[in-house]
Amino acid sequence: MQKKRIYIQEVACRDGFQNEAAFIPTDDKIEIINRLSDCGFAKIEVTSFTSPKAIPALRDAEEVMHRIQRNPNVVYTVLVPNLRGAERAMSCGVDEVNLVMSVSETHNQSNLRMTRERSFEQLAGIIGEVKSTPVAINISLSCSFGCPMEGDVPQDEVLSWADRFAELGVHGITLCDTTGMAYPTQVRALFEDCKARFPALELTAHFHNTRGMALANANAAIEAGINRFDVSLGGLGGCPYAPGASGNVCTEEMVHMLELMGMDTGVNLEQLLQASALLPGLIGHDVPSQILKAGPRLKLHNPVGSMARSQ
Amino acid sequence: MQKKRIYIQEVACRDGFQNEAAFIPTDDKIEIINRLSDCGFAKIEVTSFTSPKAIPALRDAEEVMHRIQRNPNVVYTVLVPNLRGAERAMSCGVDEVNLVMSVSETHNQSNLRMTRERSFEQLAGIIGEVKSTPVAINISLSCSFGCPMEGDVPQDEVLSWADRFAELGVHGITLCDTTGMAYPTQVRALFEDCKARFPALELTAHFHNTRGMALANANAAIEAGINRFDVSLGGLGGCPYAPGASGNVCTEEMVHMLELMGMDTGVNLEQLLQASALLPGLIGHDVPSQILKAGPRLKLHNPVGSMARSQ
Repeated sequence: MQKKRIYIQEVACRDGFQNEAAFIPTDDKIEIINRLSDCGFAKIEVTSFTSPKAIPALRDAEEVMHRIQRNPNVVYTVLVPNLRGAERAMSCGVDEVNLVMSVSETHNQSNLRMTRERSFEQLAGIIGEVKSTPVAINISLSCSFGCPMEGDVPQDEVLSWADRFAELGVHGITLCDTTGMAYPTQVRALFEDCKARFPALELTAHFHNTRGMALANANAAIEAGINRFDVSLGGLGGCPYAPGASGNVCTEEMVHMLELMGMDTGVNLEQLLQASALLPGLIGHDVPSQILKAGPRLKLHNPVGSMARSQ
Repeated sequence: MQKKRIYIQEVACRDGFQNEAAFIPTDDKIEIINRLSDCGFAKIEVTSFTSPKAIPALRDAEEVMHRIQRNPNVVYTVLVPNLRGAERAMSCGVDEVNLVMSVSETHNQSNLRMTRERSFEQLAGIIGEVKSTPVAINISLSCSFGCPMEGDVPQDEVLSWADRFAELGVHGITLCDTTGMAYPTQVRALFEDCKARFPALELTAHFHNTRGMALANANAAIEAGINRFDVSLGGLGGCPYAPGASGNVCTEEMVHMLELMGMDTGVNLEQLLQASALLPGLIGHDVPSQILKAGPRLKLHNPVGSMARSQ
C-alpha cells in the first residue's frame, strides 16, 4: 500500500530565531539552513523581511536569502509584513511570500499595531503586486484556534477571513495555533470545513506545543485530510504569553511519530537530529526537543541495573 | 449526549517520587496525597512496598498509607514487588495491590534481577495469597510497547503474558510504555486486541512522554476503547535511559485535553493545578508540565505589544 505523503515545512529559522534574544551570526544561520535543505523538507521558511528595528534578530534577511545554497526540491518561503518587505523578498528570488494577520482583532492590534481591516487592505495590496509574478503567495492566519486575549474565535470568523484571501487568489492558507490553544476535536472540525471549502488550495497546519497537545493536534489534522505542517527544529519558537513553555511543534518529534505511523514525510530523521544537536550551541540554551535527549525509539541501550522498579 | 467517562489514575507519588534523589518528607507526601484525594481521581497509587534499601525514597510506605485521609470514592493502590510487600500492603488496608513485571526478558533481568519466569512464579504466589481477600489485584506489564535494550516486543508476546495473568484471576491489566517507545498506530492495534481478549478486565494505559507522544498515544488508546489511564502530576517520573527527557504523561495536560474534547474525567483541573504548583518546592526542581507554565487554554491575558510577528 502506498504510504500517505506528508509535507513538512521547517520554520525554525524564522519563527524560532526571531524569538532569540542574542543575534545568531549570519554564517551560522546559513549553515543551518543549508543542512536543513538536505534533510528532505518540502518547504523552508528562511527568514522574515520585516524592519530591522522590529526584529533585529532577522536584520540579515537579504544576506541569508542570497547566500544559502538552494535545493531545487525545496520551496524557500519568507515572511513579509508589508509591500516593502515583499519587494525586498522578491529581489532575493524567494519562491513564496508568507503573509500574516490575525483573525482576532485584539491580537492583530497588539501584534501588528493595526486593525484587521487595515491589515487585510495592506495584504491585498501585496497580493496585487505579487500575483503577476511567479512567486507563490501563502496567508498565515494567527489565532485560528483561539486568542490569548479574546479567548475562543468562532470557526465562521476564521473561515470568513480565509474566504477573503482565497478570493484574492492566494495559493495557500495556513491556520496557525499561535499560542497553543488548539485541541484535537476543534482541529479536526475546523480543518474538515477548511478542506471542504478550499479543495484546490495548499492548506497548512501550524501548531505550537504550549500545552503539550501539538502531536495530538497533528494527528487530528491528518484525520481531517491535512498533509502539510509547519514544524520547528528542536521545538524552537515560543509564545510571549507562556514564558518557559515550549514552542512550535518539534520537527524531529513530528517526523519521528509520523514515520512510525507508516507515513512518508520525505525527511531524514538522522540528519535532522544532527542539525538539531547544533542548536543549543547556536542559541546558547537548551531546546524543548525530547527526541534530542532520548533519541529515536529504537536507539537501544546496554542492560543496566536500575533498582527503582521503573514501570 | 452522555459524555464519555475516562478514569484517571494518579501515580506521581509512586512512579514519580521513587525517581527523586532527595527524600520527600512523609508529612509532605501525605499532604499531597490528601489534596489529590479531593481532585476526583478514580485511583491513586500511593507508594511502593519495596525494600527500603532498594527504594529509600519510599521507605515510609506504611506510615504514608496509615496516615492519609482516604476518600471513599478513590481506590488506593500500591506497588508490591513480592509476597513480603503484599503482606505489608494488606496490613495497611490497601484497596488494590499493583504487581509488576516486564514482558522483555532483558529489561526484567536488569530491572527486577530475575528471569520473567521467576517473576511470574513469585507474582503467581502473591496472587494466590491475595485472591482470598477483598483486595483487588492489578498486573502492570512493563515494556509492552518496546524495550530500550531489546527493541520491539512482539504483540503476541505481550498478550501471552497478559493471558497468563488473566488465567490467575487478576482484576486489571496495565500495559506500560515504560520508556516512551509507544506510538499511536501501535497503541491502537495492541489495545484493540487486548480489549477484545479481556472484555471483563479493567484495562489501563500507562504512557510516558519521553518522545513527546504521550497525549497522541492516549487518544489512540481511547479510539481502541480504553477508558483508564495512569497519569503523573506535573509529568513527574522518568526514564533511566533518557536523562533530561520528560517523564510520565502529565496529569493536568491529560485532563485539560480530554475535558476540552468533551470527555468526563471527573477531575477538577483547578485543584489539580494548585496541587501541581506545590511540586517544584517539594522536590526542589522544575517539572515537565507545560500547563503549569501556560495555564489552561482560556486563561486570558491583557493586550500586550509584541513586535515579534508571532504566528
